[in-house]
Formats: sequence, structure tokens, C-alpha cells
Amino acid sequence: MDLSTIIGITAAFGLMLMAILQGGPLSIFINTPSLLIVVGGTIGVTFVHYPFGDVLEAINVAKKTILYKEGSINDMIAQLMEFANKARKEGILALQGAMDEVDDDFLTKALQMAVDGHEPETLRSMLNTEIEYVQQRHEKGAAIFLAIAMYAPAMGMVGTLIGLVQMLQTMDDPAKIGPAMAVALLTTFYGAVMANIIFNPMAGKLKTRSQSEMLMKALIVEGMQSILSGENPRVMEQKLHAFIAPKLRQSTFK
Amino acid sequence: MDLSTIIGITAAFGLMLMAILQGGPLSIFINTPSLLIVVGGTIGVTFVHYPFGDVLEAINVAKKTILYKEGSINDMIAQLMEFANKARKEGILALQGAMDEVDDDFLTKALQMAVDGHEPETLRSMLNTEIEYVQQRHEKGAAIFLAIAMYAPAMGMVGTLIGLVQMLQTMDDPAKIGPAMAVALLTTFYGAVMANIIFNPMAGKLKTRSQSEMLMKALIVEGMQSILSGENPRVMEQKLHAFIAPKLRQSTFK
Amino acid sequence: MDLSTIIGITAAFGLMLMAILQGGPLSIFINTPSLLIVVGGTIGVTFVHYPFGDVLEAINVAKKTILYKEGSINDMIAQLMEFANKARKEGILALQGAMDEVDDDFLTKALQMAVDGHEPETLRSMLNTEIEYVQQRHEKGAAIFLAIAMYAPAMGMVGTLIGLVQMLQTMDDPAKIGPAMAVALLTTFYGAVMANIIFNPMAGKLKTRSQSEMLMKALIVEGMQSILSGENPRVMEQKLHAFIAPKLRQSTFK
Amino acid sequence: MDLSTIIGITAAFGLMLMAILQGGPLSIFINTPSLLIVVGGTIGVTFVHYPFGDVLEAINVAKKTILYKEGSINDMIAQLMEFANKARKEGILALQGAMDEVDDDFLTKALQMAVDGHEPETLRSMLNTEIEYVQQRHEKGAAIFLAIAMYAPAMGMVGTLIGLVQMLQTMDDPAKIGPAMAVALLTTFYGAVMANIIFNPMAGKLKTRSQSEMLMKALIVEGMQSILSGENPRVMEQKLHAFIAPKLRQSTFK
Amino acid sequence: MDLSTIIGITAAFGLMLMAILQGGPLSIFINTPSLLIVVGGTIGVTFVHYPFGDVLEAINVAKKTILYKEGSINDMIAQLMEFANKARKEGILALQGAMDEVDDDFLTKALQMAVDGHEPETLRSMLNTEIEYVQQRHEKGAAIFLAIAMYAPAMGMVGTLIGLVQMLQTMDDPAKIGPAMAVALLTTFYGAVMANIIFNPMAGKLKTRSQSEMLMKALIVEGMQSILSGENPRVMEQKLHAFIAPKLRQSTFK
Repeated sequence: MDLSTIIGITAAFGLMLMAILQGGPLSIFINTPSLLIVVGGTIGVTFVHYPFGDVLEAINVAKKTILYKEGSINDMIAQLMEFANKARKEGILALQGAMDEVDDDFLTKALQMAVDGHEPETLRSMLNTEIEYVQQRHEKGAAIFLAIAMYAPAMGMVGTLIGLVQMLQTMDDPAKIGPAMAVALLTTFYGAVMANIIFNPMAGKLKTRSQSEMLMKALIVEGMQSILSGENPRVMEQKLHAFIAPKLRQSTFK
Repeated sequence: MDLSTIIGITAAFGLMLMAILQGGPLSIFINTPSLLIVVGGTIGVTFVHYPFGDVLEAINVAKKTILYKEGSINDMIAQLMEFANKARKEGILALQGAMDEVDDDFLTKALQMAVDGHEPETLRSMLNTEIEYVQQRHEKGAAIFLAIAMYAPAMGMVGTLIGLVQMLQTMDDPAKIGPAMAVALLTTFYGAVMANIIFNPMAGKLKTRSQSEMLMKALIVEGMQSILSGENPRVMEQKLHAFIAPKLRQSTFK
Repeated sequence: MDLSTIIGITAAFGLMLMAILQGGPLSIFINTPSLLIVVGGTIGVTFVHYPFGDVLEAINVAKKTILYKEGSINDMIAQLMEFANKARKEGILALQGAMDEVDDDFLTKALQMAVDGHEPETLRSMLNTEIEYVQQRHEKGAAIFLAIAMYAPAMGMVGTLIGLVQMLQTMDDPAKIGPAMAVALLTTFYGAVMANIIFNPMAGKLKTRSQSEMLMKALIVEGMQSILSGENPRVMEQKLHAFIAPKLRQSTFK
Repeated sequence: MDLSTIIGITAAFGLMLMAILQGGPLSIFINTPSLLIVVGGTIGVTFVHYPFGDVLEAINVAKKTILYKEGSINDMIAQLMEFANKARKEGILALQGAMDEVDDDFLTKALQMAVDGHEPETLRSMLNTEIEYVQQRHEKGAAIFLAIAMYAPAMGMVGTLIGLVQMLQTMDDPAKIGPAMAVALLTTFYGAVMANIIFNPMAGKLKTRSQSEMLMKALIVEGMQSILSGENPRVMEQKLHAFIAPKLRQSTFK
Repeated sequence: MDLSTIIGITAAFGLMLMAILQGGPLSIFINTPSLLIVVGGTIGVTFVHYPFGDVLEAINVAKKTILYKEGSINDMIAQLMEFANKARKEGILALQGAMDEVDDDFLTKALQMAVDGHEPETLRSMLNTEIEYVQQRHEKGAAIFLAIAMYAPAMGMVGTLIGLVQMLQTMDDPAKIGPAMAVALLTTFYGAVMANIIFNPMAGKLKTRSQSEMLMKALIVEGMQSILSGENPRVMEQKLHAFIAPKLRQSTFK
């Protein structure tokens, strides 16, 4: 479970609530028609922009990405080194047995392809195609969140313009100007909150997670490649270590 | 027919109308000269930016894209696998007969080229050129919609500046200031609505649809390539499955 | 002559004029010092940004691009097919005679190179270098127009700030505030008009025209390449047709 | 230690303080709830955007980058030339002894690989992978600083909107309007200061430092490549000099 | 000496001065604390963003670029053709004597390498590395000017926010509001002038000059390549002419 998302969003909303309550009642920040035009309108134009399927897929990607337990990249390197040793001693086919202890679907697929006897080059090219399209799906998910973060303030501005025009047309009682403008500004406020506290940062988290996942997959492709071509284990380890920061590298060789 | 566009645009306009009516009559939001300068002016500068032919072509692309019934990518994979089997058993020329049951123009063309005896490399390179230029035309369509979404708020600002200058020059009766400013703001409102509820999301839909279409075409090129080079059906299926999300993959092999 | 530019710019200015006149006299929108600071200042910073030669070249490119009569891409394909037939029957040297009926300078150059006996690869590489640098010159032209479209509103803002500071410093007579602010806003108005009605769309037209010209040149390179390598005419036609939309393709083969 | 960062940030804050004190007491610029919503809210959404680990890593990268003592690129060239001479005279293995006098971790690694007998091509490809991923980590560090510089003004705007809505709703005493708006503007002020004086320029410094480091690493790869392939020292020096400005080049040859 | 920069900047400042004087005394636009916070603050954050060395280097690049007398590209082509003839008749070594009449440092270096007996491919690759890093240094120079053009308005906004907060807190005498706001706006004005009249256009000029210089260098590499490989002079001239606009081409062949 992604702790930083939950803590971050709770902190941001908590501080905002605190700032509101410290200056007056919360009720003046709640206005149903304003909420409808910003939230509903944003959902509406999002469906003009993206087909239903893509939006549902994005929600799915978001859910999976946030719940996703990131594996340790060092454990993955250790596991790949172990497979390399096994393959060197007992042959590639011995990896068949090793597949049961593997959690990662992508690694399972790579192992299956290796056991099936694909050439290193075929394996690399097919796995890279897979990586490319996974990345495209992730990027579409992040793009939908970014689009929402762009439309929400726009709908907020449309709402504020509606409020301003109505207020200016009926400016007979000066005492009503203030509250009317306050209400007109609420849609801008809702749009800013949706964009900056929820959807922009969430799109960022999706991208960050996707990058870690892609790094892990690239590491697997590199490692399987080394295993299939029977590369020297020390060279293979050096190659895999190049993917991570020097201080994280733990050699299995003394 | 593209349902999400229609539902989305109806919802967004409906909520906006509701917000307007809830605060006063609709009539104060309708002003013919303001409409003329924003809508007409935007059309004008769009024609300065793009030749007539391109704008008409964009409308065409938009119409076709929205009416376009997206085929199932799984059906396409199944069909390509079927062709592969047929070609393996009866030879490439047997695909001539299969062309009649094909709806997709691009697939028909690819089959025709295969039957005509082109080399796999020629087929790939000619189909890729075709994909590249289809994509350029789609991108131009989306670019025109984005340009309109950029010019509409700009014309709205020009209209509001005209209104403000006139109001400030004749500020003798304070009672008229409010309504005059309300009218001046209407052009900004029109521009924001045109950009954010209609043209920006529509440009997005064009891009999304174009991407799906390009994915389908890339799949066809990959599949035909496999068929022509007589690749193992299991490998071919794995290659095609790499284009789609794992959970959508339905193998024809048990 | 580029009709859509003229009609578009006339329509946009016409509607703007109409909106102005409908609300008051045109005279309040004309202020010589404001015009000087926006138009003159924009010209000044444009010369800080670009050398004299580049700006003159951009005006030239613009003139040529707008007056440019776009040739039919289908006619070009037909002409190239004709040359291919001639070359097949009478040899490459027979194209020498055909050069007289050619309008396009780029095609003439390509034919000259073919007749001179250059290898297909040399021809492609030299013509591609030429295309690359033509494109660079076109892009610079469009970039200068875009720069002007960026500086004009900036100078407008500088002018408005000057007006506002002067107005705020001498706010003794409230009756003068309105007109003073109206005048201050005029520079912003001039900047917005220059950017959004003239220079941004014109930069767009330059880019669009340049793209059509580049497509035509790419087609010529592809066609000459086919002719020199004595490719099958049907294949050559298919290759050239890949550059254009399916519905525009007119085969010379039945 | 990075002097220009410290002097720059001190100067900017000093001048700002001076401008504040010259116009009134500092106290009116300090407001705890406003600080909390901008600083705390920005931290919150940063954690929604990036996982804890990445933010800590970014702080680390920033610390290391600012404390980083940039080596002289000319000294590095001299050292590489010296190694080249040694390797030519005494063989590659002689570089083993030279490794002790080397500070740079990356150069040590490159020497170790050379001594281990890797091929020039393997060495280049493994070191380039390492460079690529170091660069990715640096870029992520700079990206986090840029994200903070984007969220701080956004949270400032959210805070100002809250203040404005509250002020407009309770506009009974005109005397309070001014101070209330002043407080509302403080969050915008905090956001602007955080973004423009601290996080945007710091992100820039991270990028600049990263580029110098990458240049140094690219130089090392090029030099080691020359050493391993036993290239002529004059040619090697010319190759390395191409990395730096002509006036910095000091040839070791007369 | 770069005339267009001087004329442009004089014209822009002259028109601005004229607009100011026409509306009141110049003195109301001069405020020392405001100048200090914008100019000094911008310098400060620039040093947070870039190390001292880079900023000094940028000033150097700017000075050199503005003083740089652009050579005629046609003269360069003529010179290269002359060298080609000399090399064909008397051998590559004859170019040694020709080096004395050459002004361009890059051409001198290329000739030296040719005379030293480098292979065409080595020459191209070493000169291209040199071009790449010269370009990087130029781009950094332009990037620093662009950064200043970004920070100046930001510091202007910070200054204006300080002024606004102070004015709103002490709004007891309505007569002072106007002048106080005028002073607050001055920092915004200074920022806009620095960005739009000085640093943005200057960054543009640096880029434009750099592009011309790179084009010249690319031409030299192409020409030396042709000379070393003993290419036919007509073909060589055609290759070099591809770099420039058709109407500028002056053939040395009749």
C-alpha cells in the first residue's frame, strides 16, 4: 500500500481545513451548484476527451499502481544471479523448476521464453515490445489524470465567469456584492484544489511508479539476456549493478 | 457512434445551464455582437492559420473519427492467426479468398500486397510509410482543433478589452458600470466555453482515437510480417499479444 | 494567391470593427503614443532578437509562401509515373528532354542529377540535405513571426504598466481615472490584436505551407529514387500513393 | 562547497528583507496559518507526487551536489594522458598501480574494468549504461525540486482563495478589508518566494552540476577507450580537447 | 559589430522613454529599493541557479557573439572549392601553405588535421565532437539569458506583493493608496522590461548567431570531407550549395 500518497493527501487537506476553520465556518466553502459545475463538468469534458474504456482503465491503473508493492531491486538482482548460476550448472531447462518461486509476471514470462528455447535476440525484442506497450498504457493513465488536472481549473474559471456576470448584472444592493463574489470564487477554489492537491500529484505518482516498474523490467531483460548467452557471472553482476546507485550495490562476490 | 463524446458534452453543457438558470435568466448570457466577435473572429483567424482545404479535411477527420466503430483488437488477433494457419496449410495465395470477409481497408491492402508476392521487408516498409502519413493527417486534424481552442480565448480577451475600454471611457453613470462589465466579460466566457468544453476535449478524442487506430495498424503490419515469413504460430501469437494488456490476452492454444 | 489568409484576416478585423462601432466611436481605440510603443517597441526587440538579414528573409519567405500556388500532389504523381515510363522505355537520358515541361525547381534539379548519372543513393542524400536546409529556412521564418507574436503582448503589458503607474500617481480627479485606464489598456489591446489576429496565425500558415512543400519534395525524392533504380511501375505508384489519403489516390493502372 | 548558491540566496533574501523593512515592520509578513498551508501543503502534495524514498534521495542528491567539489577538467585530461603513456610503455596492467592516486570513483571503476581485461566496446557500453542511470537519478532529483517549485505557488493560490472567500463573505466593516486582503495575499507571497528564490534556482543548480559531472564521465569513457585501443597520444589528446573550449586547451605536446 | 542589436534596443528604450515623458516626469518611474530587489534579486537567484564560472562564461559568449563579424557563407564555399582544386592538383599536403590565409579557427584546425593525414571518417567524427560541445556551450549561454528573463518578472512579482501587502495593511489614508500601488507596480514594470526588452531578445540573438556559426562549421566539415576523399568538384559544389538558399548559390562552373 502506498503510504506516502495517503499521508501526503491527508496532510494537505488537513492543513487546508485548519486554515479554513481558523478563519470562519466551513459551510461558506460548500455550495452545491458550484460543486456540480466543477466536478460534474470536469467529468463531462473528460469523457469528451477520452472514451469510457480509457477512463475506467486509468482508474484501474491508478488503483493497481497505488496498491502495488514495489519489489526490492537488489532482491531481483540476487534472484537473477541465482538463476544464472543454476543455468550455468544445470542448463537453461533447469529454470523451469525455478519459475514456481517467482512472483513477478514479467520475469515468469521471460523465464518461460528462455525455457521454450528462444534465441537471446528474439527474447530481447519480444520483451521490449511488451515493455513498450505496458509503458504506453501507463502513460495514458497518467495523461488522463493530467487532463483532469487541466480541465478542473478551466471549469472553475467558467463557473466564476458565470457568477461574475450574474453579480455584475444585478448590482443594485452593494451589501450583496461581497457574498456573491465569494460564491463566484468558490468554483475557482474547487478547480484549484482538484488540480493541485489531487490530480496533478496523483499523475506524478503514476509516472514515478511506472518508471520504477520499467527499470525493474529493463533489468530483467538485461539479466535474462546475460543468462541465455552464458555470460560470465561477474560481468553480468556488473551490468546489472549499473542500473542502481553505487551505494545500493551488494556484490555476491567477495 | 461515439457515446462518451455525446454524453460528456451534454453533461457539461447541462450542468453549466443549470448553474446559469439557478442564478438568473439565461438571456443575460446571450449577446449577439459578443458571439460574433468570438465565434466569427475565431473562424477568421483559423483560416489565416490553415488553408480552407485543411480545415474541411479536419472536420471530415473529426466526423469519421467520432462515427468510427472501433474494432476489437482481440478479434483482429484471432483473424490474423486464422490467416496464418490458412497460409501455412494452403499457401499465401489462399489469402486471396479470405480478403472478402475483411472489413478493414488497411488489412485488405496488406493482404493484397502479400498475395501480390511482395517481400516481407517491402511490405513492412510500404505499410509503415502509409501509417506515417495517415498519422500526419490525423495529427493535423487534432492540431486544428487545438489551434481553435487557443484562438477562442484570445478572441474572447480581445472582445473583453474592447468592452472595458468603452466602459472606462464613458463612466459617467455608475449604475451602468456593472452591466457594461458583465457584457465585456461575456466574450471571455464564450472563449473559455469554446476552448475548454468543446475544442480542447475534441482534439483529445481525435488523438486518442488516432492512437487506437495506429495500434491496430501496427498489429496488422506485425502479423502480416509473421505470416509472410512463415513464423511459428505460437511465437506469432506471443508477438501480437505483446501489443495488449496481459488480462486481455486470449490464447487460441490450450 | 492564398485566399483563406485574406478572407480570414478581413473577417476577423471586420467583426472586431463592427463590435467596436456598435459600442462607440472608433476614435477612442486610436492613440498614437500607445501604437508607437507597441508596434515600434515590438519591431525594436525583434531586431535585438534577429539580425536584419533574417527578418528581411522572413518577410520574403512569408510573401513567397502566401503567393505560392500549391501544385496538385496527384498531378505530381502522374508526372513522376510518366517519367518512370519514359525512362524505362528510352533510358534515363531521355528525361533530359522532359525537363522543359517541368515547373518545379526541385524536380528540375532532381532530374538534372539523374541525367548527370548520379547513383540513387547520392541523389537521395543530396536532395535530402537540400530539403533539410530549406526546412530550416522555413522554420526560421515561422519562428520570427512567433517571436513577434510573443513580444507584441509583452510590449503591450509594458505600455499598460506605464499608463497605470502614471494614473495611480496622479489620482486627484476621480473623473479622469476611467479614461486614463482606458488609454492604459489600449497597449494591451494592440498587443493582443497583433499577436492573435496577425502574427500567430500567419506563423501557422507559414508552417502549414512549408509542410505541404516538404511533402511534395519528399514525394519527388521517393519517385526519382524509384525511377533511377528501375522499380516496377505498380510498386512505385503504390509507394507514392502511400503519401496521400486513400480517397485521393487515382491509379493509372486499371 | 558551492559558494555561488550561498551568496546568491543570501543576496536575494537580504534584498527582499531590506525592501520589506524599508516599508514597514517585518511582522506583517509573518502569519503562521498561512505558512502552514503553503509550506505544509506543499510538502504534503510532494509526497502524493513522489514516494518517500525518492524525496529523501533528492535531498541527498542536492546535498551531495552542492557540497561536490568540481574537479578540473584539464587535470582529468592530464591524468588520462599520463595513464595512456604508462599503458603504452608498461602495458594495461600497469594501471593497477595508478588506481591508488585516483579520487574519482567512476575513473577507478573504468580503470578496474580495463585492468580486468574487458574489451574496449564492453567497457564503453557498460560505462555508458552507468552514466545513463546516474543521469536518470540526477534528473529525478532536479524534477522533485521543480515539482515543489510548481506546487508552492499553487498552494499559495489555494490559500489566497480561502482568504478572499472569507473576506468577501464578512465584508461588514470596510476598515478590515485591507488587512484581510493583505493576509490573503501572504500565501501567494510565500508560494512565489519558495518557488522563485529557492526551489526553481536550486533545481537549476542540480541540473548544471549534473551536466558538468556527465561531461567529466563522458571524457573518462572516451579517454579509457583510447587507452585500451592503444591510440596515438596526439590523436587522443585532440579527441579529449574537443570536449572543452579552445582557450582552455593546454597541450602536453610542444 | 552587431548593428541590429544596438538599433533595436535603442529604439525600444527610446519609444518607452517617449511614452513615459509624454505622460509625466520620468522620476516617478525610478525607485531605488524597487530597482534593488528586482535587479539585485535576479542576479542573486541567477547565482543560485548557475555557478559563477558559467555566468561569466555566458557574458563572454554574449560579448563574443555580438562582436562576431559573420563571414560570408559564399566566400567560405569559394575558399573550400579553391582548396579542393589545390589538393587535386598538388596533393593534400599543399594545403599546409594555404592555412596562412585562413581566418576561421575551425577551418584551420580542419586543414591541420587533413595535412596530418587523418582519415576522412576520423576527421568528420573529431570535428563533429568539437561542433557538439561548442553548441553545448552556446546553448548554455542562451539558457542563462533565458533564466534571467524568467527570474526578473518573478522577482518583480515578489516586489509587487510586498508593496501590496504593506499598502493594504496601512490603508488609513485613501489619498496614499494610489501612489503606494504605483510604487508596488514598479517592480513588475522593471521585471517586464528586463525580461522582454533585454534578456529574452538577447538570448534569441545568441541562439541565432550560434545557428549561423554551426551552419558554417557543418559546411566546413562537409567540404573537408569531400576534399579528403577527392570528390568530383562539381559534386562537391552541389553538396555545399545544398546548405544555402538557391538564390544565393553562385557556381564557379559555367
